[in-house]
Amino acid sequence: MREDRKADELRPISIDTSFNRYAEGCALISFGHTRVLCTASVEEKQPPFLRATEQGWVTAEYGMLPRATHSRGGREAARGKQGGRTVEIQRLIGRSLRAVVDLDMLGPRSISLDCDVLQADGGTRTAAITGCWVALRIAVNKMLTDGTLEQDPVIGQLAAVSCGLVDGQALLDLQYSEDSRAEMDANFIMTPEGGVIEVQATAEDKPLHWDQFMQLKALADKGIGDLAAIQNEAVAKS
Amino acid sequence: MREDRKADELRPISIDTSFNRYAEGCALISFGHTRVLCTASVEEKQPPFLRATEQGWVTAEYGMLPRATHSRGGREAARGKQGGRTVEIQRLIGRSLRAVVDLDMLGPRSISLDCDVLQADGGTRTAAITGCWVALRIAVNKMLTDGTLEQDPVIGQLAAVSCGLVDGQALLDLQYSEDSRAEMDANFIMTPEGGVIEVQATAEDKPLHWDQFMQLKALADKGIGDLAAIQNEAVAKS
Amino acid sequence: MREDRKADELRPISIDTSFNRYAEGCALISFGHTRVLCTASVEEKQPPFLRATEQGWVTAEYGMLPRATHSRGGREAARGKQGGRTVEIQRLIGRSLRAVVDLDMLGPRSISLDCDVLQADGGTRTAAITGCWVALRIAVNKMLTDGTLEQDPVIGQLAAVSCGLVDGQALLDLQYSEDSRAEMDANFIMTPEGGVIEVQATAEDKPLHWDQFMQLKALADKGIGDLAAIQNEAVAKS
Amino acid sequence: MREDRKADELRPISIDTSFNRYAEGCALISFGHTRVLCTASVEEKQPPFLRATEQGWVTAEYGMLPRATHSRGGREAARGKQGGRTVEIQRLIGRSLRAVVDLDMLGPRSISLDCDVLQADGGTRTAAITGCWVALRIAVNKMLTDGTLEQDPVIGQLAAVSCGLVDGQALLDLQYSEDSRAEMDANFIMTPEGGVIEVQATAEDKPLHWDQFMQLKALADKGIGDLAAIQNEAVAKS
Amino acid sequence: MREDRKADELRPISIDTSFNRYAEGCALISFGHTRVLCTASVEEKQPPFLRATEQGWVTAEYGMLPRATHSRGGREAARGKQGGRTVEIQRLIGRSLRAVVDLDMLGPRSISLDCDVLQADGGTRTAAITGCWVALRIAVNKMLTDGTLEQDPVIGQLAAVSCGLVDGQALLDLQYSEDSRAEMDANFIMTPEGGVIEVQATAEDKPLHWDQFMQLKALADKGIGDLAAIQNEAVAKS
Amino acid sequence: MREDRKADELRPISIDTSFNRYAEGCALISFGHTRVLCTASVEEKQPPFLRATEQGWVTAEYGMLPRATHSRGGREAARGKQGGRTVEIQRLIGRSLRAVVDLDMLGPRSISLDCDVLQADGGTRTAAITGCWVALRIAVNKMLTDGTLEQDPVIGQLAAVSCGLVDGQALLDLQYSEDSRAEMDANFIMTPEGGVIEVQATAEDKPLHWDQFMQLKALADKGIGDLAAIQNEAVAKS
Repeated sequence: MREDRKADELRPISIDTSFNRYAEGCALISFGHTRVLCTASVEEKQPPFLRATEQGWVTAEYGMLPRATHSRGGREAARGKQGGRTVEIQRLIGRSLRAVVDLDMLGPRSISLDCDVLQADGGTRTAAITGCWVALRIAVNKMLTDGTLEQDPVIGQLAAVSCGLVDGQALLDLQYSEDSRAEMDANFIMTPEGGVIEVQATAEDKPLHWDQFMQLKALADKGIGDLAAIQNEAVAKS
Repeated sequence: MREDRKADELRPISIDTSFNRYAEGCALISFGHTRVLCTASVEEKQPPFLRATEQGWVTAEYGMLPRATHSRGGREAARGKQGGRTVEIQRLIGRSLRAVVDLDMLGPRSISLDCDVLQADGGTRTAAITGCWVALRIAVNKMLTDGTLEQDPVIGQLAAVSCGLVDGQALLDLQYSEDSRAEMDANFIMTPEGGVIEVQATAEDKPLHWDQFMQLKALADKGIGDLAAIQNEAVAKS
Repeated sequence: MREDRKADELRPISIDTSFNRYAEGCALISFGHTRVLCTASVEEKQPPFLRATEQGWVTAEYGMLPRATHSRGGREAARGKQGGRTVEIQRLIGRSLRAVVDLDMLGPRSISLDCDVLQADGGTRTAAITGCWVALRIAVNKMLTDGTLEQDPVIGQLAAVSCGLVDGQALLDLQYSEDSRAEMDANFIMTPEGGVIEVQATAEDKPLHWDQFMQLKALADKGIGDLAAIQNEAVAKS
Repeated sequence: MREDRKADELRPISIDTSFNRYAEGCALISFGHTRVLCTASVEEKQPPFLRATEQGWVTAEYGMLPRATHSRGGREAARGKQGGRTVEIQRLIGRSLRAVVDLDMLGPRSISLDCDVLQADGGTRTAAITGCWVALRIAVNKMLTDGTLEQDPVIGQLAAVSCGLVDGQALLDLQYSEDSRAEMDANFIMTPEGGVIEVQATAEDKPLHWDQFMQLKALADKGIGDLAAIQNEAVAKS
Repeated sequence: MREDRKADELRPISIDTSFNRYAEGCALISFGHTRVLCTASVEEKQPPFLRATEQGWVTAEYGMLPRATHSRGGREAARGKQGGRTVEIQRLIGRSLRAVVDLDMLGPRSISLDCDVLQADGGTRTAAITGCWVALRIAVNKMLTDGTLEQDPVIGQLAAVSCGLVDGQALLDLQYSEDSRAEMDANFIMTPEGGVIEVQATAEDKPLHWDQFMQLKALADKGIGDLAAIQNEAVAKS
Repeated sequence: MREDRKADELRPISIDTSFNRYAEGCALISFGHTRVLCTASVEEKQPPFLRATEQGWVTAEYGMLPRATHSRGGREAARGKQGGRTVEIQRLIGRSLRAVVDLDMLGPRSISLDCDVLQADGGTRTAAITGCWVALRIAVNKMLTDGTLEQDPVIGQLAAVSCGLVDGQALLDLQYSEDSRAEMDANFIMTPEGGVIEVQATAEDKPLHWDQFMQLKALADKGIGDLAAIQNEAVAKS
């Protein structure tokens, strides 16, 4: 059993939208001890593969400070290469956010989402996605306010949460001590209305039953709703 | 509507286990025009992070020949870097196969699965995983026959198949012309008994309903069963 | 003339030693809007070149988040290479700190100082050095308390500050708007007692007079004293 | 003495021009157990150094699948670098083919020859060159047929074969078991008429006599003739 | 005490401006056994970041032959990366030279200074800077003579020298045997008139007194004057 | 016709064995304006792949200073990668020298030959090989003299020379202005007694006749003899 919260309860969530004074949108998001700084940077240029079009782009990069974790990990810039896990996560973040942005309506510009993990206690990718939506929403709101954009290209809201089976019990929003011994680990990226954007579920040691996966889905529905409310509050206050 | 097969039908599948004469296990697998050469190489050494243990390891690498596709793509070795898609796929392949291998029982050795796409018409990662299980099974059978292993470390069978929503219709085993315009694309890696190893579903343009995802799951159940039978036949004949 | 502070005045300085819960020592240091997260990580292993000795090592790495600055800069990990400026700064940080540590007394272990710039408004390298001493001091204090070390290998205190000539006037602790139009830029790394650890002065456009350099030195003496007091307070409270 | 063929006899040679359905020209060539997939890709763009001209270009890349050999070799894409042997071979292939193409007549386009070794039993570079000529010939024939080209830029035929001194005996077309103990190893790239395109001869352990080299040349003359006939047959059937 | 020269004496200095026949300016400079080949290459193109301007650029690259030193060091090109020391030195060289060049007057062209250390016995960076000024001066003189430039963009002269405290004694122009045991090492880049371009002083083991630094400055004043005279003689004879 | 020398005449050759004071063997070799610094470095360690044996190794690295040529070329260390031409040449140099060294007799140590082109006017690889033999011979002589070696592992002499067909005429030792318009370019690495170590001949534009190649061979025989005499003289004087 979890010591300090219920199986279907999120860790304490907080979002600080004023941590960085330069970015067009910012969200320093905490899921318990996990803390990710998300910034949205708007640039009036397109990536090369869109040059002949009027379309915009949304992309993401992810990194972890060397001492975000219990023991120090190497610095990717010093090794000269982003690790496979980093690449996989940043591709997921970018792909998810693009699913709620109308790139034609965004016009010939780019929004780069940078997710830097300042402290890691499990769930960094779901925190990053949830924070990025806030940073993106704020950056686009500014463009709507200052007249850069006339129509809102953000066509929906999304949040992300992890769920897992630990000792046979389905738990919402795993912290590291739970994640490291989970039998199944799943990440759900969904809209508050229950729309599916991306689902990834991985059995760790042996195949699992489909109904176990469906228990995780039920937890995710609750978590996404809670996160969406906190996102909206943060955007409103920003 | 599909022209030449039913919505719940696989493309013609073939597996040639004799294409490579050196590897301990081999499967040249075709899903229609998609053709992937999978080899299993057994080495009597452990990766560095297992040095202090008696455990074995299973890992995978994935590559695509430059002209596997309609137009020529760059050669990753020449660019000096594996792309993000490659890294993501090879991590998925390795993780999936490890879920059906008892690494303690494998003992202090490594099995490397190399998946090289000779021709690509959609579904290369699911073909690769399905072929790798065959190559792995053959390689382990040899070790059981020659006495290297006493007990079978392969604790289950798995296959993989893609499903997608195209023009609102759920289709099994997408070819490239379907995949490139799918609204949702999902990959299921499962056991013939219906156990879940990994599920990944991605909405391409906008969020989708959960029951659409469940339609894809139903197709996958059928496809995995068909693939498992073909795998077993190929292993038996090898 | 400066608007909001005197020529020989530092920007508001703050040091938070509790921002990171995992590192052996931590200092989130702010020089005005410049904000650098410094962590000290102790590892019980030596770098390869010291293997045959009983000596320890202190090293530093420096990085800047992509949106630490007014406009987004590229991510070094994504480019696959640390830039020349980064390499130059991290070598300076490591060299400076080693000048106040007795490496024999430290024993066969390493302390890695990670300096990650969360926001940059000039003076990031001097903030990093000043913060690193705090993180190092705290990490070593823990080792003295828990008995890992019997004698204190930190043989002195140091702080760092930038000074510059702007429109002919000598100014202490340049912010970016000053730094970018300075005729001379100098960094002083010194002890509170006035000992010299490293001095670097660079004329930007044309050669300058030695007595102009000496004016900067006089400002640095004052700044170093102020910083040392703030460091001691932060260590005491940690 | 050789067990299964005469000193001046090639291994069984086969060429399959239909293995890849996308490339403009294709030759899956076998010299005994050595099997190389050669594709010719035509692109309507010039390399940067020819931008100001109307000239075309022919280039080649070479790679070996990790398990093409008896024991697994590393994957160059994963190591982030092509090895010296690879670079040397692909430069040789490109240079040789350019010697039989009139680049002005080819016009402002590129032909990329990709040589991927699926299985290696000695002589991979000579098989690759011999196969590339077939793939190139087929690709250019298509351009002549569809009117892209009016005149044939392929001004000659070429083939390549290795010869070596093994236990003092001159042998044609070495397989790996011979190659690995040869005293001298020579590669001849020639036209069916006896024209020299490239010759490379290397003494392995000690200097050798010139008349030994001349014996190898005599074998090459025969081998090139045999290969040219097989090439012509493959092109005719394609 | 020094064996063979006084504390304020340079090593024998020589400059050969004819060693390389292709470069626009050349100086093979020796400070005792330290020997650096400096070439200035003029190219009629700007670096990318100046494209929209009429300004020129001066940049430098530094390298050391593998056996320039007592024992062989690795080749940076083979390792695939310039070391931190190399990067730091070449940035210093470029920055210093730009301080005596009017980049607007130079016009839309680049001068690349290549410094290759053929033999190293301490002081390679100061020899390089001193030699580069000669190579630059000669290259610009040619452009003035042939009419490429109408006005002289070289607005001043500079030279560089190292000084250090060894066994408590201040010494000019350290050779390796002195440099390796110095308590403080300082590099002065100055004009013959005493103008400061760059000063870098580093305490090796423990903080030092400011008046010790001032002793080094006094030595540098003398050394810079001597070097400037030798530079002028070399330029006059070239 | 050549202006200043006969068709079968070498350019002026000189070898300076005292240019570098640290290397165990050194030869600064000039073939006309081509000038290559060759050093031999002896290290008492084996490469990893020989660890279990008592055998030694001889290897070579090649580089060209950026301004060795008429116009400046990029620095390979700065690009982060050795070019294909560099890799090809250094492999050739190492392979050739190993053909005249008994690696068992050399014992468990390595000799690294560094070839750095200070000025390039054609024939840099043949100059490098010819110079390396001198540097190697001197280094091994020292080991024989000081008792490190008892028996001489250098089992033969070698030199290298280029020959080419220019306007239909066979010429010995091409300079750049000849090399750049040669119809065939050949490099011969041979012993003074006429033994073949490596031969490489390349037709530039179109296939050539075998008897043209034989004319080049005749010139090489003469050139190798002349070079061997100059090598012996240089070794004797060193």
